[in-house]
Amino acid sequence: MDFTQYVNPFIGTSKMGHVFPGATAPFGMVQLSPQTNFELMFNQDNSYNSDTYKYCAGYQYKDTTIIGFAHTNFSGTGHSDLGDFLVMPTIGELALDPIVTKDHQKGFYSTFTHENEEASPGYYKVNLDSYNIKAELTTSDRVGYHKYTFPKTDEAHIILDMVYNVYHHDNKNVWTFIRVENDTLVTGYRQTKGWARTRKVFFAMEFSKPFISYGHEKYNEETYDGFYRRFKQDENFPEIAGKDIRAYFNFDTEEGESIEIKFALSSVNSEGALKNLQAEIPHWDFNRTREETKAKWNEELSKIEVSTLTLDDKKTFYSALYHTNLSPIIYEDVDGKYRGLDQNIHTSDGFTNHSIFSLWDTYRALHPLFNITQPKRNNDMIKSMLAHHDESVHSMLPIWSHYANENWCMIGYHATSVLADAMAKNVGDFNHERALQASVNTANVRYFDGLGDYIDYKYVPDDKSHSSVSKTLEYAYNDW
Amino acid sequence: MDFTQYVNPFIGTSKMGHVFPGATAPFGMVQLSPQTNFELMFNQDNSYNSDTYKYCAGYQYKDTTIIGFAHTNFSGTGHSDLGDFLVMPTIGELALDPIVTKDHQKGFYSTFTHENEEASPGYYKVNLDSYNIKAELTTSDRVGYHKYTFPKTDEAHIILDMVYNVYHHDNKNVWTFIRVENDTLVTGYRQTKGWARTRKVFFAMEFSKPFISYGHEKYNEETYDGFYRRFKQDENFPEIAGKDIRAYFNFDTEEGESIEIKFALSSVNSEGALKNLQAEIPHWDFNRTREETKAKWNEELSKIEVSTLTLDDKKTFYSALYHTNLSPIIYEDVDGKYRGLDQNIHTSDGFTNHSIFSLWDTYRALHPLFNITQPKRNNDMIKSMLAHHDESVHSMLPIWSHYANENWCMIGYHATSVLADAMAKNVGDFNHERALQASVNTANVRYFDGLGDYIDYKYVPDDKSHSSVSKTLEYAYNDW
Repeated sequence: MDFTQYVNPFIGTSKMGHVFPGATAPFGMVQLSPQTNFELMFNQDNSYNSDTYKYCAGYQYKDTTIIGFAHTNFSGTGHSDLGDFLVMPTIGELALDPIVTKDHQKGFYSTFTHENEEASPGYYKVNLDSYNIKAELTTSDRVGYHKYTFPKTDEAHIILDMVYNVYHHDNKNVWTFIRVENDTLVTGYRQTKGWARTRKVFFAMEFSKPFISYGHEKYNEETYDGFYRRFKQDENFPEIAGKDIRAYFNFDTEEGESIEIKFALSSVNSEGALKNLQAEIPHWDFNRTREETKAKWNEELSKIEVSTLTLDDKKTFYSALYHTNLSPIIYEDVDGKYRGLDQNIHTSDGFTNHSIFSLWDTYRALHPLFNITQPKRNNDMIKSMLAHHDESVHSMLPIWSHYANENWCMIGYHATSVLADAMAKNVGDFNHERALQASVNTANVRYFDGLGDYIDYKYVPDDKSHSSVSKTLEYAYNDW
Repeated sequence: MDFTQYVNPFIGTSKMGHVFPGATAPFGMVQLSPQTNFELMFNQDNSYNSDTYKYCAGYQYKDTTIIGFAHTNFSGTGHSDLGDFLVMPTIGELALDPIVTKDHQKGFYSTFTHENEEASPGYYKVNLDSYNIKAELTTSDRVGYHKYTFPKTDEAHIILDMVYNVYHHDNKNVWTFIRVENDTLVTGYRQTKGWARTRKVFFAMEFSKPFISYGHEKYNEETYDGFYRRFKQDENFPEIAGKDIRAYFNFDTEEGESIEIKFALSSVNSEGALKNLQAEIPHWDFNRTREETKAKWNEELSKIEVSTLTLDDKKTFYSALYHTNLSPIIYEDVDGKYRGLDQNIHTSDGFTNHSIFSLWDTYRALHPLFNITQPKRNNDMIKSMLAHHDESVHSMLPIWSHYANENWCMIGYHATSVLADAMAKNVGDFNHERALQASVNTANVRYFDGLGDYIDYKYVPDDKSHSSVSKTLEYAYNDW
């Protein structure tokens, strides 16, 4: 039975739903989804631009523009980051700014309509009306698979925008490094400083067809460029590095010709990304990957079978069940290597490492649900939290962590409740003594958010730490 | 026989000699030396400050101040970079700026005199007169060993200045990451963008005595600091990251008490630095490391024994021979891992990886000398150049490379001549076919420095590329 027919990935993409309609495998490391705007986190007077909050997942259903497809997106969060490696196909005169160019011309965005848009678990399709390009996306666990069907043109472009971020602001991009290895393979990484402070994502990008030429533009000023100034770096120079970079690759296309891209991620290095690419999608068969991922979704969705609901209620139910399988994500390469909090490279031993732990949001319902629907994976997640503890210089379990960073969002230390719930229900084979010790360590970090006072007074005084009643309640619950 | 008695490391430290008097093992990865000024590469009007050129090796004999001891320094170069991880002991009120503080007080520098300064191969000593601290330095291959003897004080500080660079300028520091693992161990890394564009150096710093407290100050403005703002980050908070950071560690000392520091480097990660530290100096015996390194120097210096010279001429000769053993440097961890040009981690197989190839300066005399005095090491260097070629996205041998970067300085492709010289003299066991192919590849990169025109016209036209006569001559020599 095909349960994916009941999933509507567009549910929740309006207003403050903060979910994305793009393609992903269950708990996939690559979550490849359209971005409909480029919102800056701060206004020109440095005040917070509250409109960025609408774009936590990169997509707003009301929008009529798409600026490209990014490989990492949060699902359902109340703050944001990510949006790595925005890829956009265009034709005609090259524009490298998403919305408007320096000389006030149209940027590389395209208009689109929902009539020509389609999404199902592991698949997304849209017509990019500004260019008459059909865009299709699917993914494996660690690789995004793009298929762009072009009209006939000798000015086809694939843009790789390394400036773009969800919650973008000046100095968010710390470093970008791109190597054009040959005329079908590009590798590199980006480091950002945002909600996560030291976040590195590596990639390997393979094209189904050689590009004719390529280039890039830097969007930051250089204080000193050393002896690289000897080269004409902006065109056909294979080594690109800096802060704010947008690159492009040029092609000729026949009418109806598809250019496909496999885009793999890694937290370790570009060699790891290339290994992921070769291991997961060694072919150029888009439908094969799409079908494999659909099968994975059916396996997850079939875990709860309801027959008594109406069709509309089934759609609500299975779309919600679908959304429970988008986060936390797998966060390791096919060889088990991953970047830890200490920025060293670790290898998972006896578990699959996961990231994106929004624990204030997930300890009450999501992880208890996982104990029923995903016991093996919840065990992996708990072991990932214990690894986080071991890698933490604070000896703390995750509070709100993503991509080898603790982002310290929200209050309490709810990982302890996730551990306790699994212990009480006898889920998993993680070490209970170690889990208890990690919880006790976490509960004794005095400089954390009123915790020293809580330990001394048995409550958090309001004149010493904000949200003191909530913190007292949550610490007490977690301790219990 | 003790040949080190003839070496005077101060020879060449005046004016434009560009060498350093500090401590290092032969070809050591750590070259730990006093820095006597903090010169900025650009004036306030953005013009080049030519005085920086005097400080290529961080030290000027005429100076009367020392601002600290840095772990990486070039020897004899005509452009510069490095100066990683400046460590300075002070007492009294804490100052975190090297020269002058924001409120116009004296910075953390100390005055010194040459009467109280001493240097010999692998050892350096100076009295820091501003604080009555005796500073002594020695090193193993990958670990700097500091010994600071303090007066009695309850205000002893060790400053770790991560802002400082040789050839410093705005935005040279890309990212700094520090973890205070416990009260005797600090780890981290820094990424810089200068002569080398994407340069990362990792460290592990161990103290012989626990510090009482610590802290840091940021010298850059933050656009957005996320939820780290919840913490009082500047004091006793063990996770420190940003662009421009100076940290400090506080101690009490008795009269004549020494605080020792082992400071290990790695190009791979901080775990690699810690491995290097534990493998090379597992003890707290400063004199043992000093004697081991002195023995290594005697082994190198004894390779040429001259008996007919006067004492002064012997000093000139052995000091010059000493200087031939400072660069290129070992550039791999004790386990053979090193960072490659592609920023991936490689493992040397059948050789010891080296870096700092100033080939325009060294192909005529230094590498031919190495074929006599250092045949095994020259073979390692050639294999390192071949690895560089394989990791290069341009498929080029090094032009002027350091720290996993090609810096593109000077003209010609003189690595080919180094390879040819060793082949002609039958030195080493590197693969000659591979060496020829790498040379041919290098000689055919058309976008490199007039090379396309040289291939087309058999000379470099002056109206197309500067220094055209020199380039034509050097390309012709290299091709021959």
